[in-house]
Amino acid sequence: MSSSNESTPLLPDFPPGPLDVYRKQASFDWKKLKLFVEDEELLKFKLNIWRTLEADPLFHHPQLSLSLDEERELATKRMYRLRELNFLPFEDMLIDVRKPFALTSALFQYNPSTAIKLSLTFGMFQNTIRALGTERHYHFLEDCDSSKIGGCFALTEISHGTNTKGMRLEARYDPSTQQFVLHTPDFEAAKCWVGSLGKCSTHAIVYARLITPDGKDHGLHPFVVPIRDPKTLLAYPGVIVGDLGEKIGLNGVDNGFVMFNNYGIPRENLMNKLGDVTPEGAYVTPFKDPKKRFGASLGALSNGRVMIIHICLAYFVKAIAVAVRYSAVRKQFGPTDAEELPVLEYQLQQWRLLPYLAGAFVLNDFGIFFGKVMADFQIQAVLGGGDKDEMAELGTEIHALSSAAKPIAGWTTRDAIQECREACGGHGYLKVSGLGELRNDNDANCTYEGENNVLIQQTSNWLLQLWSRAKKGVPIKTPLQSADYLSNASEILKTKFAAKTVQEAVLPNTLLAAYKWLVCWLLEATEARVQSQLRMGKDPFTAKNDSQVFYARTLSIAFIQHDILRRFFEHILSNPDPQQQLVLSRLGSLYGVWSLEKHLSILYQGGYVTGPQPAQLLQEGILTLCSQLKPDAVSLADVLSPPDFVLNSVLGKSDGLVYQNLQVALFQSPHCFERPHWWKEVTRNAVSSKL
Amino acid sequence: MSSSNESTPLLPDFPPGPLDVYRKQASFDWKKLKLFVEDEELLKFKLNIWRTLEADPLFHHPQLSLSLDEERELATKRMYRLRELNFLPFEDMLIDVRKPFALTSALFQYNPSTAIKLSLTFGMFQNTIRALGTERHYHFLEDCDSSKIGGCFALTEISHGTNTKGMRLEARYDPSTQQFVLHTPDFEAAKCWVGSLGKCSTHAIVYARLITPDGKDHGLHPFVVPIRDPKTLLAYPGVIVGDLGEKIGLNGVDNGFVMFNNYGIPRENLMNKLGDVTPEGAYVTPFKDPKKRFGASLGALSNGRVMIIHICLAYFVKAIAVAVRYSAVRKQFGPTDAEELPVLEYQLQQWRLLPYLAGAFVLNDFGIFFGKVMADFQIQAVLGGGDKDEMAELGTEIHALSSAAKPIAGWTTRDAIQECREACGGHGYLKVSGLGELRNDNDANCTYEGENNVLIQQTSNWLLQLWSRAKKGVPIKTPLQSADYLSNASEILKTKFAAKTVQEAVLPNTLLAAYKWLVCWLLEATEARVQSQLRMGKDPFTAKNDSQVFYARTLSIAFIQHDILRRFFEHILSNPDPQQQLVLSRLGSLYGVWSLEKHLSILYQGGYVTGPQPAQLLQEGILTLCSQLKPDAVSLADVLSPPDFVLNSVLGKSDGLVYQNLQVALFQSPHCFERPHWWKEVTRNAVSSKL
Repeated sequence: MSSSNESTPLLPDFPPGPLDVYRKQASFDWKKLKLFVEDEELLKFKLNIWRTLEADPLFHHPQLSLSLDEERELATKRMYRLRELNFLPFEDMLIDVRKPFALTSALFQYNPSTAIKLSLTFGMFQNTIRALGTERHYHFLEDCDSSKIGGCFALTEISHGTNTKGMRLEARYDPSTQQFVLHTPDFEAAKCWVGSLGKCSTHAIVYARLITPDGKDHGLHPFVVPIRDPKTLLAYPGVIVGDLGEKIGLNGVDNGFVMFNNYGIPRENLMNKLGDVTPEGAYVTPFKDPKKRFGASLGALSNGRVMIIHICLAYFVKAIAVAVRYSAVRKQFGPTDAEELPVLEYQLQQWRLLPYLAGAFVLNDFGIFFGKVMADFQIQAVLGGGDKDEMAELGTEIHALSSAAKPIAGWTTRDAIQECREACGGHGYLKVSGLGELRNDNDANCTYEGENNVLIQQTSNWLLQLWSRAKKGVPIKTPLQSADYLSNASEILKTKFAAKTVQEAVLPNTLLAAYKWLVCWLLEATEARVQSQLRMGKDPFTAKNDSQVFYARTLSIAFIQHDILRRFFEHILSNPDPQQQLVLSRLGSLYGVWSLEKHLSILYQGGYVTGPQPAQLLQEGILTLCSQLKPDAVSLADVLSPPDFVLNSVLGKSDGLVYQNLQVALFQSPHCFERPHWWKEVTRNAVSSKL
Repeated sequence: MSSSNESTPLLPDFPPGPLDVYRKQASFDWKKLKLFVEDEELLKFKLNIWRTLEADPLFHHPQLSLSLDEERELATKRMYRLRELNFLPFEDMLIDVRKPFALTSALFQYNPSTAIKLSLTFGMFQNTIRALGTERHYHFLEDCDSSKIGGCFALTEISHGTNTKGMRLEARYDPSTQQFVLHTPDFEAAKCWVGSLGKCSTHAIVYARLITPDGKDHGLHPFVVPIRDPKTLLAYPGVIVGDLGEKIGLNGVDNGFVMFNNYGIPRENLMNKLGDVTPEGAYVTPFKDPKKRFGASLGALSNGRVMIIHICLAYFVKAIAVAVRYSAVRKQFGPTDAEELPVLEYQLQQWRLLPYLAGAFVLNDFGIFFGKVMADFQIQAVLGGGDKDEMAELGTEIHALSSAAKPIAGWTTRDAIQECREACGGHGYLKVSGLGELRNDNDANCTYEGENNVLIQQTSNWLLQLWSRAKKGVPIKTPLQSADYLSNASEILKTKFAAKTVQEAVLPNTLLAAYKWLVCWLLEATEARVQSQLRMGKDPFTAKNDSQVFYARTLSIAFIQHDILRRFFEHILSNPDPQQQLVLSRLGSLYGVWSLEKHLSILYQGGYVTGPQPAQLLQEGILTLCSQLKPDAVSLADVLSPPDFVLNSVLGKSDGLVYQNLQVALFQSPHCFERPHWWKEVTRNAVSSKL
């Protein structure tokens, strides 16, 4: 147990309290498991960030909700303070590629608006210039480094988001002035949803259709566009820039919109790595195929989805930690009137929460793995070298995986937060539970960087391509091996559910085998569906669209669930501690069997299972794993939870003193006992009746 | 078409606009259908309320979110104005028992906080006194009538909500002072979640354990307790009353908590219809069984759940109207680059929204039916007469139905709002979409008046009782006939899914037959599960708890879905218009087949269906009905939607001018184009670098 003692200063013990009953039941050492899940270096990095913030009054959580303006002001002040604190200098990022994702998690867990402001104003603006600009744009990077300017990223228009090709903002090149003239034809073509543009940005990266003097439209290109005078923060003439107003969540971020009225910018402001215009107005590009140029230009965005997986998990683990701890303290009913049970003792409550607890571990593990893959890929891409085709294949697979993993992370987090909210009953509805804010903030994850239901089609499209190869006997071998089993599809499709006992039903191989069958069956069904739609005379666009529900959409979900689960089971094999292995394998099995059970009707439909027994085995497997994990649940929540300052929930504090903490929060809250200043509104009838 | 013309003044035509394309495709006259769905008298009643509110600046929607204090002040002012407006005088309520529910719908659709304040401060306070008090309490009613006092209802304690028997506030009778002395032992026994208590109430109905001088604890009894001086609104000594602070939603309501410190109240303040204490301290009650007294006392609450069904539907129809109208205007992608399609044209979007559109019609219809049943029952109870046993049986069935219908309404509304939010993409995340507020407000419906997962156990308990009778051959015949088919369970369990085509699969009888089988099969499975748990040596409490997941819980859900669906199909038979019948039956079929498909694995598990075909038929049925209903979708949204002022959504306005309305909302919003007062936070680096 020496490593546990060594790590004591890193992870202090919890104060004694009502959670001890469960903590003493844990089958493993929570500190050791945390170091397996998080990695000591990254954990230190995050804890240092949080301790620094906690020590600074600017980062304390306000007691009352702020007005929209106050939220923006606070997020902006914090953003500049974080710049000064500079937790992750550019050099360190290159030394450990996992750190940008760890920083994301740490800041989003602390406060999402602050994290977004920082990453949009500086990070994304600078990264895009580095990726798509050339030397002539590097002065923007320097001005950004010294915080003299602040940027934003403007792609989406009011009437076009998902369909980027439909965007209409024009940038016409005028050789006489050597300027691009930006013009927004109408409000529907206004750039919108631009984070940090509403009140703050001095510059924007703006995507507009580049039109050369010959009238030719070369499609979307990125420009660096001055928006506001960095000294006065007033908009330049020709720029109509405004605030998108209140949102469901993330209100510290000043999302904005902008319209341009024949607004001229220097020719040099075109980011010209992928395409340029000569002073005379001739278009030049290294790409022959304009589609490839466009793809390469948008490639700079692919990182965003991997970030979102981390953002989702940052919220997810907070919600489940709150609900599990609260359920271990909250008592209600019991076998006798005298003896009340913690609600965590009820099978129903276990079933509501523990599959999400398991999901948090499994998805979190995938997020960390995928972050590393993404970072390595980006570095490889910057450094160059390596086989070009291999890099392209890897890029395609990353795209396919992230296009399903981001939706799954968003939706699972959405459902987890909601179940946690409801499972905390009335007190879960208090703002101080923290669950409402998590829900409102996570909601955006289902929409931005690709609406989930639309984005996930990218994955099934890729799978269908692989499928047509596999059917021709071409072996499937992709860099991340996520779909290599398709080579054996015909054997897989002949398999049946073989488990005869509950224990067998939840074994990793049982679950992975069922998922492999599911993916192959859904591929076959989706392919057949598309063909039948085509035979009905539908065009390919419509045939594909009419093959999403019950087919391609479910296919993408099953595919990514399999891959997430497979990697988790593989990863935990590397853990040498038998107690940890046992609890981790139970978590993997619970997430796996619980996810699989939702596909049960397909397993029946395709004949992979028959009769009542398989359903009973899977369902009993879920309940058994819940009851096995129940004694470990609080310690598992401890592993996932950030420190109390970051968790910021009265119901979920690590001391478990729910009612004492609630009393303090209420009694110390401003105006709790105060008569309102409008009290005469209430008394007027009592008083007037006396007159 | 004469009735349509006659109703023109009641329902004006919509202005021309982008929604016309769909409105012209509708297969029915939306005004006529609205009068079938709503009833002309009730619609007039609601429209009059809304028009009155729209004409009064106090009821205009604020442009920016208010602070907590401002929200409370506004809700309180509006509450007193509504008192003056007095839309539903007590006499009118008796003339048309449906009107209280229509009033609930109208006010909740306008603004939930205002509606709750009004109903708690006056309605519920007075109704409880009428139900449980006697003549000596009627002066409270008069003071309430003249708004001299305002009440609230205090049952829940900090550490006991669902388990009412665990409550600990004591009311000890002291014969020497002829007072009850209220004492809260600690913060955990503080009454909490009391709406209107936080800032406003002068009196509270408080449930406390009545203890007579002999030390005997007679259990919970209701008392009228003075809280604040009606002239000064300051709390009386001995009363520690405070504000529960911000919540996830419903922030116009000042929920409060209260603790009593040996606080004496007159003996007469005990509401003594069901139990009393003599001046000398002897306890007297007409009930021999204390459980029955307690049950009768809580019976006054049963109305609440029926109200909540109406509240859910009030939100539900707003959300779906917004999402359908927006989807009919929003275009994205298309078979060619030139031609973009409204997103409603995509099968995926239809599948996301139209089953909820159908659900809104079906559940709304059930709510109206059930409101009438509830009102008739209450009047019968007040008037007396009628067979006592029959009344008890009806009361039990109402309890069983409402205990499942409230959760189903809450959950379906929750899921509908969420899907609508996501289906509206980025703009759905704007506050002006209205969807975030609906979600936050509806969230409470899943928790109050019985946490959904706990409450729904009441229904399965009742069904299991009926089942044990049915198995003995006793014919099941209940007043509302919701479970009469259990008499034929053994035949039903022998039936199989018989449909061979998609049309057959979605016929009312196909769906209802499948549901009947499902309920009987789940009853058998749940009963067997309980028995197996008992055989394993578990006590009855634990055996029941361990039979909820996959068994009793699913049983209650299937049971209420069947009953809701059955009544809808029966009701639409009364509609003589063939166009309306067709669209209504499609709506019923879509909701039915979509709900049933979620139980598909059970149908396989129990052998009601086998092989791939039934799944395909049901799924194809969903997609076919979606495409058949798509041309009607906008007009169906028009039928459900309240007027624009009440819908209060920039995305869902009836003129369909989404982008114009969005532009107006943004441009007219305060501070849209303004430089923030903290602008120097942003420019300081740009300026300082020049110095």
